[in-house]
Formats: sequence, structure tokens, C-alpha cells
Amino acid sequence: MTAFEKYLYVKNINKSILCVGLDPVLEKLPVILKKEVNSIYIFCRDIIEATKNMVCGYKLNFAFFEQFGVEGYEILKRLFDLIPNDLIKIADAKRADIGNTSKAYAKSIFDYFMADAITVNPYMGFDSLSPFFDYSDKIVFILALTSNPGSQNFQKKIINEKPLYQLVIEDSINWGNSKNTGFVVGATHPKELVLIRKIVPDNILLIPGIGAQGGDIEAIIKANNNGPAIINVSRSVIFSSSEKDYAESAAQEVKKLNKIINNFSK
Amino acid sequence: MTAFEKYLYVKNINKSILCVGLDPVLEKLPVILKKEVNSIYIFCRDIIEATKNMVCGYKLNFAFFEQFGVEGYEILKRLFDLIPNDLIKIADAKRADIGNTSKAYAKSIFDYFMADAITVNPYMGFDSLSPFFDYSDKIVFILALTSNPGSQNFQKKIINEKPLYQLVIEDSINWGNSKNTGFVVGATHPKELVLIRKIVPDNILLIPGIGAQGGDIEAIIKANNNGPAIINVSRSVIFSSSEKDYAESAAQEVKKLNKIINNFSK
Repeated sequence: MTAFEKYLYVKNINKSILCVGLDPVLEKLPVILKKEVNSIYIFCRDIIEATKNMVCGYKLNFAFFEQFGVEGYEILKRLFDLIPNDLIKIADAKRADIGNTSKAYAKSIFDYFMADAITVNPYMGFDSLSPFFDYSDKIVFILALTSNPGSQNFQKKIINEKPLYQLVIEDSINWGNSKNTGFVVGATHPKELVLIRKIVPDNILLIPGIGAQGGDIEAIIKANNNGPAIINVSRSVIFSSSEKDYAESAAQEVKKLNKIINNFSK
Repeated sequence: MTAFEKYLYVKNINKSILCVGLDPVLEKLPVILKKEVNSIYIFCRDIIEATKNMVCGYKLNFAFFEQFGVEGYEILKRLFDLIPNDLIKIADAKRADIGNTSKAYAKSIFDYFMADAITVNPYMGFDSLSPFFDYSDKIVFILALTSNPGSQNFQKKIINEKPLYQLVIEDSINWGNSKNTGFVVGATHPKELVLIRKIVPDNILLIPGIGAQGGDIEAIIKANNNGPAIINVSRSVIFSSSEKDYAESAAQEVKKLNKIINNFSK
């Protein structure tokens, strides 16, 4: 089963296109957990346990583990192993480099962590991403239009009457196959998503930026026009309670979001 | 002492602007070393030992360690600790993400690995890089025009009569301070380097791509016009011999390159 087929399957089983972003921050952990690095493992484990039947997958943000060095890196691996294999495991690593280096990154993400998907940065062009696309059964999410304010700096600049993010999508659409080529489009850009959906009606999109980052769920679901998509939410779910009910609270938030998303998707 | 001051100091002491890129590949290790992950530590250690008095620093390419998971990550940390502190330690990690994530990456690179410099990707704009610039005594090398073929895909596309890489440089030039803002310009683009040096005569450049990637040393040194720069060489130095003399052979290559570079710099 390819990652894309797995997405279709789990989305149907769990009735959810929501993905929970695991971006643990030591200072924000529930008071019941000790202020030590291993608590981020316990925290993420409990959230996975409480939500795994109501999401389509998890997005693990490498930075939040790498900041703790080898200890954090070990926890990252343990969490990848812990997540059930019928869910989509996204390595949010935003990698890309020259060819032989990207090949090593692809090995790290797909062979070592055994992720189903990765986020990659298009700035260095075709040969910097092709080693990821060589894994034809995975999903490679290319950053197109990101959710942050800095997306204005370059991504929206006009080249031959088109914004750079559109050029990125149109150029890279055939770098992989139709099922392993995805794009990241921030939930803060519903207007642009309408246009993007016209260019890539069938490609899977990773849409972060709802919740703490302020993306409007209704607008983004309507703009997505029922195309294959994974909506990511991080902070507003995982830090919804700082008390001992943090895992159940996260599950409640997921349920609420699923309901909202599924309603707007009708 | 800031990283930039350290660069000026070590460049003068070691009479070198050459940096050795540590991109170890298990299959290419000298036959005398066992085919096991820890051999990449021994290999890099021996090369550092043999060349540390004739280079300005080392560039550690994270992908080549991350592909071995936790074991590789541990070796990466040991190598950072091993390199003498009077040399420039460059984390070639090409990171960047939304603000709170980049903050965590910056912690990983500067607080945990204690690198002097990092390579970062500009695609996500200002707020994705500002957490790195907050470390005012480090050097942040922004990818501008990279050495690989894919630099044609987007970096050379024209926006308001200027290529994207030029816009990146002109926009980001004030995101940090004059001493912690550097740019990556591939040695395969000497003609463009002439233009870039006019825009940023005093900013430090990281120039990879000589040797295996085919950059012409004479053309690139002349184009650089004696601006502050670090020339990186990886494969043609570290894999210059696959016999037991690999470390001395690397040192001989470095000597040769120093002589060539210093001659053209006069």
C-alpha cells in the first residue's frame, strides 16, 4: 500500500483528514509532568494514545526534538515507532540540499524513521528533491505557500505574471508521480488555495496553520473543494489543557475539529 | 569573539580560507576502516587531526550523519566537540521553518552543537530566519545561488528585472547585522559572483562547489575580489585516497588548494 492509498484508507476508517502536529515544548508541558526531556516522550505518547482512532496521522516536527540533541533524536525515533502503521506519519523536516546530500536525508527520513511523508523546500530546484521522489510509494510535500508572514517575502513575488509559489507548483508537478507529489499550502491563504486547487485538483495538500496560527477552517475547507488534503493542527490541540487531563482534552479538541471540518466538507 | 572575528583570526593564523566539508559516505571509506557506522567518526577525526592547522574550519553536513539515525547524530555531536574552538564550525543543515520552529532549530545548532555558523534556506522569508539572526555573534549563511543544476529552476528566475537570488540577497541583507549575515554562492557561478560582490562587498560568503562539483577555482577567486569568504571543498579532499594514507592525502590536497587559492588571491 502506498502512503497515498493509506491516507485514503485511514481517512475513511477514522472519518478524519485531521493530523495532529507533535511540536512539544518543555516549558508548556502539563504541570503533572516532570520538567525533563523524557517528558516530551510521555506527553506525545499520551496524546497519540488518546487520539489515534480519530485522526488520519501525525506530523512530527523535527526541530522540537533536535533542540534536545541526541536525547531528543532518540525520542523522535521512539515516537515514529510508536505511531500505528496504519496512520500517516509525516516527517516535518523541511529538508533539501544538493543531490547526494538529499539522498542521505531521504535515507534518514524514509529508511531510518520509516516516515510515510516528508516536507521539503523547493528553493534548490529539481535535483535537490528528486532523491525524495525516488521513493515512489511515499508522499513528498513541497513547500508552496507557507502559513507564516514571511510567505510574502519571496513566495508571492511575481515571475512572468505568476507568483513564485505557483511557478513552484507548476514546475514541480511532474518531478514525482501524481500520488507521491504533494504541496504545503498554509491555511492562512484560502483565496490562493482556490487557485492552487485548480492547478492541482488531485494532488494531496498538507494544510497547516489552523488554530494558533489563525487560519479560518470554514474558508480553507471550502477553498479546498474536497480535494485530497491533510489539515494539520498543533498547538491548539496538544496544549489545550495544562492539567492532568491533557490527553483527553486533546482528544476532545480533535473531535470538535473533525466535526467542524466534516460539516464544511459536505 | 564573534564568529566573524574568529574567521578573520584563523584565516590569518592558518593562512587559509579553505574549509573542509565532512560528508562521510560509508561505502567510500578507506578499505582499512571497518564497514560500520563508528568508522565515519574515526575517518572524520583523522582528517580533522591531519588538516586542522591548514584550514579555516570544517563544514559538517548533517544529512550524512542523520542517515544513520541516533548513532550518526551522536557522532555528529562528538565531531563538533572535537574540532578545536579556534576554527569555524559550520552546521550545514539548510534549516528554516515558521518562527517558533526555527527558534528550536537555532537552539539545536547553536546551543547544543555549539556551531559558529549555519546554512539556512530563505524560501519561507524573514520570520523563518530571524530566530537564527537573534544569535548575533554567529554567522547565518543564507542560500542565495547554489552550486547545483537545480539553481536554474527558481533562483535564476526574474522578478522585476532581477533574478530571485539577487532579491533574496537585497531583501535579507538587513535581517541580521553586517557580521552575522552571510550568503551561500556556489563556485559554479563565477559570473554571478562578480555581481553579488558588488551588492555585498563586505559580507562573508560560503562558496561550495569546487572539486567534485566542477567549480573553477581561479575564476571564483578572482570574482570574489578578496571579499571575506570561506571556500568549501568536500569529496575531492576527504576521498582523495582510499588507502591507509587517507588523512595525509587529505592534508596534501588541502596544501595544494591553499597554494592555488592564495596565489590567485594576490
